[in-house]
Amino acid sequence: MTDMLPLTVAKRREHDSLGEIDVDADAYYAAQTARAFANFQISGIPIGHYAVFIRALAFVKKAAALANLELGDLDRKKADAIVAACDDIAGGKLADQFVLDVFQGGAGTSTNMNVNEVVANLALEHLGLPKGSFDVIHPNNDVNLSQSTNDVYPTAIRLALLLSYDSLSNELADIADAFEAKAAEFADILKLGRTQLQDAVPMTLGQEFMAFAVTLREDILRLEEAARLLKEINLGGTAIGTGITADPRYAALAIKKLAEVSSVDLVPASDFVEACWDTGAFVLFSGTIKRTAVKLSKISNDLRLLSSGPRGGFGEINLPPMQPGSSIMPGKVNPVIPEVVNQVAFQVIGADLVVTLAAEAGQLQLNAFEPVIVFNLLQSITLLTNAVRTLREKCIAGITANEERCKEHLEAGTALATALTSLIGYEKAAEMAKEILRSGRTMRALLDESNTLSADLLEQVLDTKALTRPSRFRNQPANGK
Amino acid sequence: MTDMLPLTVAKRREHDSLGEIDVDADAYYAAQTARAFANFQISGIPIGHYAVFIRALAFVKKAAALANLELGDLDRKKADAIVAACDDIAGGKLADQFVLDVFQGGAGTSTNMNVNEVVANLALEHLGLPKGSFDVIHPNNDVNLSQSTNDVYPTAIRLALLLSYDSLSNELADIADAFEAKAAEFADILKLGRTQLQDAVPMTLGQEFMAFAVTLREDILRLEEAARLLKEINLGGTAIGTGITADPRYAALAIKKLAEVSSVDLVPASDFVEACWDTGAFVLFSGTIKRTAVKLSKISNDLRLLSSGPRGGFGEINLPPMQPGSSIMPGKVNPVIPEVVNQVAFQVIGADLVVTLAAEAGQLQLNAFEPVIVFNLLQSITLLTNAVRTLREKCIAGITANEERCKEHLEAGTALATALTSLIGYEKAAEMAKEILRSGRTMRALLDESNTLSADLLEQVLDTKALTRPSRFRNQPANGK
Amino acid sequence: MTDMLPLTVAKRREHDSLGEIDVDADAYYAAQTARAFANFQISGIPIGHYAVFIRALAFVKKAAALANLELGDLDRKKADAIVAACDDIAGGKLADQFVLDVFQGGAGTSTNMNVNEVVANLALEHLGLPKGSFDVIHPNNDVNLSQSTNDVYPTAIRLALLLSYDSLSNELADIADAFEAKAAEFADILKLGRTQLQDAVPMTLGQEFMAFAVTLREDILRLEEAARLLKEINLGGTAIGTGITADPRYAALAIKKLAEVSSVDLVPASDFVEACWDTGAFVLFSGTIKRTAVKLSKISNDLRLLSSGPRGGFGEINLPPMQPGSSIMPGKVNPVIPEVVNQVAFQVIGADLVVTLAAEAGQLQLNAFEPVIVFNLLQSITLLTNAVRTLREKCIAGITANEERCKEHLEAGTALATALTSLIGYEKAAEMAKEILRSGRTMRALLDESNTLSADLLEQVLDTKALTRPSRFRNQPANGK
Amino acid sequence: MTDMLPLTVAKRREHDSLGEIDVDADAYYAAQTARAFANFQISGIPIGHYAVFIRALAFVKKAAALANLELGDLDRKKADAIVAACDDIAGGKLADQFVLDVFQGGAGTSTNMNVNEVVANLALEHLGLPKGSFDVIHPNNDVNLSQSTNDVYPTAIRLALLLSYDSLSNELADIADAFEAKAAEFADILKLGRTQLQDAVPMTLGQEFMAFAVTLREDILRLEEAARLLKEINLGGTAIGTGITADPRYAALAIKKLAEVSSVDLVPASDFVEACWDTGAFVLFSGTIKRTAVKLSKISNDLRLLSSGPRGGFGEINLPPMQPGSSIMPGKVNPVIPEVVNQVAFQVIGADLVVTLAAEAGQLQLNAFEPVIVFNLLQSITLLTNAVRTLREKCIAGITANEERCKEHLEAGTALATALTSLIGYEKAAEMAKEILRSGRTMRALLDESNTLSADLLEQVLDTKALTRPSRFRNQPANGK
Repeated sequence: MTDMLPLTVAKRREHDSLGEIDVDADAYYAAQTARAFANFQISGIPIGHYAVFIRALAFVKKAAALANLELGDLDRKKADAIVAACDDIAGGKLADQFVLDVFQGGAGTSTNMNVNEVVANLALEHLGLPKGSFDVIHPNNDVNLSQSTNDVYPTAIRLALLLSYDSLSNELADIADAFEAKAAEFADILKLGRTQLQDAVPMTLGQEFMAFAVTLREDILRLEEAARLLKEINLGGTAIGTGITADPRYAALAIKKLAEVSSVDLVPASDFVEACWDTGAFVLFSGTIKRTAVKLSKISNDLRLLSSGPRGGFGEINLPPMQPGSSIMPGKVNPVIPEVVNQVAFQVIGADLVVTLAAEAGQLQLNAFEPVIVFNLLQSITLLTNAVRTLREKCIAGITANEERCKEHLEAGTALATALTSLIGYEKAAEMAKEILRSGRTMRALLDESNTLSADLLEQVLDTKALTRPSRFRNQPANGK
Repeated sequence: MTDMLPLTVAKRREHDSLGEIDVDADAYYAAQTARAFANFQISGIPIGHYAVFIRALAFVKKAAALANLELGDLDRKKADAIVAACDDIAGGKLADQFVLDVFQGGAGTSTNMNVNEVVANLALEHLGLPKGSFDVIHPNNDVNLSQSTNDVYPTAIRLALLLSYDSLSNELADIADAFEAKAAEFADILKLGRTQLQDAVPMTLGQEFMAFAVTLREDILRLEEAARLLKEINLGGTAIGTGITADPRYAALAIKKLAEVSSVDLVPASDFVEACWDTGAFVLFSGTIKRTAVKLSKISNDLRLLSSGPRGGFGEINLPPMQPGSSIMPGKVNPVIPEVVNQVAFQVIGADLVVTLAAEAGQLQLNAFEPVIVFNLLQSITLLTNAVRTLREKCIAGITANEERCKEHLEAGTALATALTSLIGYEKAAEMAKEILRSGRTMRALLDESNTLSADLLEQVLDTKALTRPSRFRNQPANGK
Repeated sequence: MTDMLPLTVAKRREHDSLGEIDVDADAYYAAQTARAFANFQISGIPIGHYAVFIRALAFVKKAAALANLELGDLDRKKADAIVAACDDIAGGKLADQFVLDVFQGGAGTSTNMNVNEVVANLALEHLGLPKGSFDVIHPNNDVNLSQSTNDVYPTAIRLALLLSYDSLSNELADIADAFEAKAAEFADILKLGRTQLQDAVPMTLGQEFMAFAVTLREDILRLEEAARLLKEINLGGTAIGTGITADPRYAALAIKKLAEVSSVDLVPASDFVEACWDTGAFVLFSGTIKRTAVKLSKISNDLRLLSSGPRGGFGEINLPPMQPGSSIMPGKVNPVIPEVVNQVAFQVIGADLVVTLAAEAGQLQLNAFEPVIVFNLLQSITLLTNAVRTLREKCIAGITANEERCKEHLEAGTALATALTSLIGYEKAAEMAKEILRSGRTMRALLDESNTLSADLLEQVLDTKALTRPSRFRNQPANGK
Repeated sequence: MTDMLPLTVAKRREHDSLGEIDVDADAYYAAQTARAFANFQISGIPIGHYAVFIRALAFVKKAAALANLELGDLDRKKADAIVAACDDIAGGKLADQFVLDVFQGGAGTSTNMNVNEVVANLALEHLGLPKGSFDVIHPNNDVNLSQSTNDVYPTAIRLALLLSYDSLSNELADIADAFEAKAAEFADILKLGRTQLQDAVPMTLGQEFMAFAVTLREDILRLEEAARLLKEINLGGTAIGTGITADPRYAALAIKKLAEVSSVDLVPASDFVEACWDTGAFVLFSGTIKRTAVKLSKISNDLRLLSSGPRGGFGEINLPPMQPGSSIMPGKVNPVIPEVVNQVAFQVIGADLVVTLAAEAGQLQLNAFEPVIVFNLLQSITLLTNAVRTLREKCIAGITANEERCKEHLEAGTALATALTSLIGYEKAAEMAKEILRSGRTMRALLDESNTLSADLLEQVLDTKALTRPSRFRNQPANGK
């Protein structure tokens, strides 16, 4: 466990609706944070670990203050101080004040109050007032004005995801480019295509790598579609989506302000009561990054298989050696980079289940389990982003081909027999394939001997490169035989 | 276990590339099906269980024949016979001939051969020839011409999903309408909104039911988006996507024919090598219907909770009694319909994991585990479609409200305290809430006594109906006091 | 979908506590079954699909009747008739009368009533009375006497699992024997051991296969341990475990009778209230068979990898060809049997999630979602049992080794370098390994040339067979050099 | 992200088999750690986060040194220095030197080398030598002597789990005691038992809480059984379980030493080749703690439901208020402690899936994905231990009962109707239950009026307390009427 942040000696006395509590004199947070900190000693991972989430929360507080100012519910002095505090926090200031455990009950209320309290005290500091002067700027009455955790928190989750998934998209674009570059480099390397791990038909190594580029590039679009749903927010719905305590003009205004503040397109959800409890956008976003994880794991499996050996495996490509592979086996170099990608993929798949479980557990007007949803989604994005970058930089970029080995595999087998089916039929071709495997002779030798095909057609059928494209042979030329 | 289909007495001798095998004399399938039938005695569920999948396969065979005919690779007599056979099968004929277990190795080859063999024998019948006259129409050389399992099978999966998800969409539209009708019916019933199972603020029962309509209606669009990806098919890619054995013009033509035959928009995948192994569209489709399942489970949980009792629970709504609830407790009626929906949701979530596992296990140029993917997806669609229809017909349509109980819950608690925060601040409102709970007195009594608000404002604050909309109170009118 | 069982023309009028309903005149089931049948049209799989579950239910009914008879709550005439009916049903009679969908709400009440009604009508038949003479033998008052679905149903699930897991254990024992036989056959075939798909150190093919035997044999014990928990039943707890309506002597007596009737050791749960809702034994049983599934999938992956090729892969073993592998590629033979085992494993892993979800959803005094638990567990046992048998009969038994290929892989690489580390240190050995890979020369040649080791030690170090056992070389003999 | 540990300015030059690399001059780790640190920048969570895992690794290194000393393969001076270093590390020294990411490729080799290098440098320090004097004590040749990552790493995982699960067991024992204490406190509080959220039959609140105690106490035994499998280790198997480089006496000796050093019973696995790749013990251990998580989630759901309200819900118990429940709703107090337990349960269920995926992905002689397994298992144990302690201290201990509410619920409904079934039959009792619900009259009134039962029997039937035990009424006394 990372050590829990200890409460230090000097204290100031604070109170909330449950009574009094001592808080570290230097802390910017106050009573409710201290209470929640004591309540939730679970994982040792503080919410501040995910800076983007704190930034998103600060944006929401700022937008709310601007909207309240414009509606006349917050005076300019307070609003300016709150906005300044939010700007500081969004810029990374006081990062160590967001101390609560990522695992917490209360549907995010504690996180919201942690932010409310830090913003209030920092705003007070901007006004030259001591911490805790909540009669001037109050965490609930001013910073949280017209808000509820139940609209602030899901809005901030959505915003945090929107602010962070871009880096994953960019990494996906870069790795797709890297695969495409390799595809170009390997465009003329003929090799054996395999289905069900069995020798199948010819292809190029370039085709194999191009498919990796194509499949990952698709997911950039999928992420974008899934992210679109995240842009529908319920800010202004307050406690259960009905907007209690909020001016009727507030929701539209606050969402407009938040879009400006964050530079992210945001729109009001169509039904705020539904939006207050619905976590469908998280489930689909999670399912989408799970899809990416599944693809990355499949690709990593392929890379490990194609580079297996170096002598006793497929050995068709070489991954760049990144570190000695063994504490005991000298000279062994392992596919450590794809292996870590596999593990990240497993974690992301597991996280998707956690998100699903939490989503299903929502009840009535709220989903109380959003804290574990946001933790898992932000962790998955972080892991995937780092894994994709690592895979590109430390593996794909340095892959080389064993052209000789590719050729050996292609020629040793029955990869060309399929091309014959349209000329001699499936069953005769199958007999020939068996003969090749039994005798070790080549197809050319057998075809020559059998005199089945015209010389011209024989060359066509044995032109391996041509067989990597749509290629149908017709018997007409052979009819003359 | 459903009994395995037994092979009956009269036999005809057939052969394939592995040798000879006896086949039931009446069977339309032939050697390879018989072999696979013997190999895979796993679940007892035949592929014919999902008629839509057989229909999709028949459409593919027909489209291929039409394309081959147009390219001159299949003569008209054969093509006509094959097309006629495919039409019969798509229409439901010979449904009992698709005998193979849904659990099968071989990446769908056995299923493809089951169809090839049945089509061949039925086509021969159309020509007045006995079964097994494969020198005239051959399962591989003619029915499977220009095809591989590896393009036929994934194409048919996609087509089957496209042909079947509509019914789910329609049911979702119908149940959304049913919820919306209830929302209209319950528009004026005031009740307590709850967050974290604790009394929160006022809302209407109509708002609660409207949210159910909204959330499910969204998923019709999500299904449509996920289905869009399914329309990209790899027909013509043959064994590994390179198109070996296929005329260069074949792929585009066959896909066009398939779109015509099936009346489904279909387009060629952008990279056939990738499309041959990629199962990302299945993962996302599965994730999308999982999202629907999660929502249905949450709604079912809410319905069960709101109807809990009848005396010792929430008791705010009544579900229609569908059957005696207990073998021992007289008069007990249980929420059996939502309960079955929960269980369907669990199964769909589990199926999503199976699809994920199978997708991740794909290797190199193919995913050999598509049979378990198609089984789980078709099962999930079937279960969800039936569950949604059942929920609508046998539950939602008959729900009634306990208006009195709703009112009691609303008035007994502190649901109005939130409205006070903008007038007297969070902490004073909290004290008043505690006093209500301690004393059992109403908020009106406490407010009257305390003389905090003007009479006018007091009425506004206690207007419960108004509190179900955005509602901010400002102190100005009270200033006069 | 298998067609739903239609209710046929001739009807008799029955009634239950919800009113009157028409039932097929020939049916042995009655009003409540008919109502539930109409309510649950979900999967099309009837509960009768799992005969062992019906047998277990019949055993419970019989045991209850015997206990009630002994306590004087049921007269002998009724008891005899009920027992005779239960014996018939346990023996497989009227299997088509258990028509309800495996997906059903109501915590199993419908299934229990289906059995109560069929037993009652069959018992009446034994007394020469027409169906529906429930004033003589009543489904609830007599057949279900002293029982509730809430004790009968979980008891029957446990019993059904106990009656069916044996076949899985037996198959595991048989396949372990088959692997062990192969291990003996391959005891002297030297080959390359691999870690992380990279060439590692020598081993025998026998060692590789022996590990498969060992790992599966362990799971027989694990299943036995998990099954032990299933033996604790709550029969006699009735509605919520408190035993309401049951004679205080009933529980112990009924459990004793059930153990006799079923020949299965059964004991009372230590706390019947807990036992009424707890599904922990199902979760652990499911986790245990998931473990077996994981092992089987890993083994299948290995078999597919070791047999990959035949020319362009590992090619160290040959799986017996079971069917032509491709509809397009002649001569291709695929590892279809391990592939189906993988898919079964995925389904079992998914089923474990369904069981987990259903278990977590239990509320207060009952888990209403046991129907989906029993369906998934029985399906998983069936699938695994069939898959293991299929794997043994159709794959393991026929595996042959490619001794030459094994030798080639072993000698081509650096498998012997590890043995040198204790003599020349890790880093020098690593340099030598690199030189082998770079030059293609053998280790013997390099060692000869370098004159590092004494002739004697050289022979020891190059004795591959010895390197498959604990083998440490010490420099003493070499010190003389 | 926690900041990655930066490599600081002063460097020393180190080398490994891949070449030279600069390492922070102050670092105790060396070249391979530095290389792996650069390779794996994934999660930002260092392996040192789980101190128990580092302690377990230090124990293994110490045991190996002692065994090597005894066998004469390590001289006393080196052995003493290594042992001293291991003791320091096991005691918590140099905790900040275990810098590698918990997500890493290489099957744990990097972690093993991190430990080897730190131990070597610390041992050198004990000998008064500068860091990097590896000609005296070498990380591979001395610290890792007779070892491979492939036996060290799984052994250390097992040991770490064995060293850490005790705290979970202790917390389970303590919370079971706490529930049992509440059960005693609530032994006489009569209440309504509920099945399927519907009013069922009487019970005591004590019975309800006792079941929580019983169900969690069972899991202490289950953990113990699952842990037993972890005690079988493969230390001495080296690279693939064949023991290459290890003296034949080494394995038994090293395991004996490790048992002594760690005070944990440890035994050799029965087949070291199997033990090298098998992760079945992790899968079952994970499945077992998942079972505990499922139970905790169910209990938390019950606690939240029973305390729902305070006015508009079940309201039968009160959870101690831990923090203000809302940023907007004054006076609201939420069940935050059970809510965090639910979320921990979801995470543990997700982790079980990650473990399953990683286990299934093992190939041939090794499972390369153990790093993600150990991370998830240690995280799950930590989360569960903290969650259970939090639930006990901050929730269970302070629960109070609302006896009045319990009584109201019990008396308002039809909870007593079940008791009548043995007297008046199921159907008549059902009619009476309906009449109660329709009219709002009590059962006593209806029974009095109907004059169905003798006065004496009437009192028996209405004795609610007696109905919480096995309780069968017989008509004999009533016959006289």
